[in-house]
Amino acid sequence: MSRKRGGVVALSGGIGGAKLALGLYRILPRGDLIVVANTGDDFTHLGLEISPDLDTLLYTLAGLDNPKTGWGRAAETWSFMAALEGLGGETWFRLGDRDLAIHVERTRRLHAGESLCAVTAHFCRRLGISARLLPMSDDPVRTRLLTAEGWLDFQDYFVRREAQPAVREIVYCGAAKARPQPQFLDALSDPDLRAVVVCPSNPFLSIDPILALPGVRDAIREARAPVVAVSPIVGKRALKGPTAKLLAELGFEVSARAVARHYAGLVSHFVADESDADGAFGLDLPVTFGPTVMTTIGDREALARLVLAVAEACPVPRHGGGR
Amino acid sequence: MSRKRGGVVALSGGIGGAKLALGLYRILPRGDLIVVANTGDDFTHLGLEISPDLDTLLYTLAGLDNPKTGWGRAAETWSFMAALEGLGGETWFRLGDRDLAIHVERTRRLHAGESLCAVTAHFCRRLGISARLLPMSDDPVRTRLLTAEGWLDFQDYFVRREAQPAVREIVYCGAAKARPQPQFLDALSDPDLRAVVVCPSNPFLSIDPILALPGVRDAIREARAPVVAVSPIVGKRALKGPTAKLLAELGFEVSARAVARHYAGLVSHFVADESDADGAFGLDLPVTFGPTVMTTIGDREALARLVLAVAEACPVPRHGGGR
Repeated sequence: MSRKRGGVVALSGGIGGAKLALGLYRILPRGDLIVVANTGDDFTHLGLEISPDLDTLLYTLAGLDNPKTGWGRAAETWSFMAALEGLGGETWFRLGDRDLAIHVERTRRLHAGESLCAVTAHFCRRLGISARLLPMSDDPVRTRLLTAEGWLDFQDYFVRREAQPAVREIVYCGAAKARPQPQFLDALSDPDLRAVVVCPSNPFLSIDPILALPGVRDAIREARAPVVAVSPIVGKRALKGPTAKLLAELGFEVSARAVARHYAGLVSHFVADESDADGAFGLDLPVTFGPTVMTTIGDREALARLVLAVAEACPVPRHGGGR
Repeated sequence: MSRKRGGVVALSGGIGGAKLALGLYRILPRGDLIVVANTGDDFTHLGLEISPDLDTLLYTLAGLDNPKTGWGRAAETWSFMAALEGLGGETWFRLGDRDLAIHVERTRRLHAGESLCAVTAHFCRRLGISARLLPMSDDPVRTRLLTAEGWLDFQDYFVRREAQPAVREIVYCGAAKARPQPQFLDALSDPDLRAVVVCPSNPFLSIDPILALPGVRDAIREARAPVVAVSPIVGKRALKGPTAKLLAELGFEVSARAVARHYAGLVSHFVADESDADGAFGLDLPVTFGPTVMTTIGDREALARLVLAVAEACPVPRHGGGR
């Protein structure tokens, strides 16, 4: 019952989200996928403008990603880093030789006055990506964390300190005044929009920065399409990154249910892993259980199909009184 | 008759000059060599501050140079360039992965407020170079060339256009207002200065930018040490680069004699290749002929010894009435 063939908007962070984004990209008609990337992890390092989530999405969608690390490029070399170490430069953030090209070229274009969105679109064209990949905003938003060691910039926390310090509070500096990407808002208000997908990314570090932009929550609620979130938690652990640790530190239960509760009021449907099907969610939110662990390309496509099937089955308008 | 053991100041451009600088570095006592590098070739490319002659000197003195190309680093890899090409970036100026580290780190430090001299000194320390390597000035000087194709920035002429366009005029933008490196002027006024060496670099593109800085010609003339220039021309050709072509285009004879004449009034002694010993120089300038082609490390040391022996034999004060 394919009553409409509008676009699909996926909100994503890096590694975990990029896996589902790739699944959606591979099964949707060319041009139908719009991926909105978190830019709260962006930072300036060695004078270079680095957008880790955008890059992971670019590399993943272009088939250039490094499946071993989850970040950076395949067939990478490390001569730059070795030489930089010899010169006494900072080496805690690993920049491969190939990866470096995207940072240098992005920085050059941004400094020449191009928007982050335009630069990203250029990279998509060059890498043959037909999805629209949008930074959530062209204005800088920077995630900072209050930890047991004081306030840390995101990459200081995440990479330099390897997400070790216990987190007490998270803020998205600049978010309140940042303008959401206009193409993002346009897509949400498209009457033919097919679905909004909240990818299995870290809710606090990857999705909430997007939701913190002025008007985004309202635009999602008003979208004439189902909103389906996929759990990044399977059982009591995160498949990647510090999501489980963060949930615990911020006082939440470590479970898919806690993530579902976090998104309640915003999403119309939740997809959790089949291994969590025995737990009662007890929320006013429909939950579908299925295989969410994406090891192979086939897994990614299968989860993408499940998410779209769930969206297809949702009534539109879908909003209950919970908001 | 080693009556003094002061420092030796060498003026140098890139490849040819760096060979003699290395010879001097290897035979002089630790810390006695001061190399003043042309920065007229410096430019901003891909947002990076690039100092080609400083880098060639750094790599050469540190033993990291690429003997095949004369520029860049040994054991270089090219992943960055390949990736940049894939992203549609500019690739006419070849930046190796290892080489890139020095540009990124220099740019970062300059933007943080360090002087080019301080950054260069840092690199010397890190690379174990005991010579003092000084940019001729911390202020930007940019060599531009009026060619048959109009005015070109140096690297546009030299690399992008492979020095093909005929040159009519050369200017050193910013030189008139640039402050010569204070350590350079201090070294020239040192009463124990042993010698000033004008390396076999391109007179117009590498040495004249240094001489164009306010006060430098006077400081060299007033130095209490012999000034010895080495010819970059052997027979009717340059050993490297466009020196011979430039001499012809600018209306000079292509010969060591023309270079000697160019430096007359500034230098106290000229060293030309033994193969040019049959030509009459006819200048009021003593000329010593010797082996100036530096193929091996031994050749470099031998020429350095010859240059210092010539300086040693010169009377001080040495200035005739010709200036």
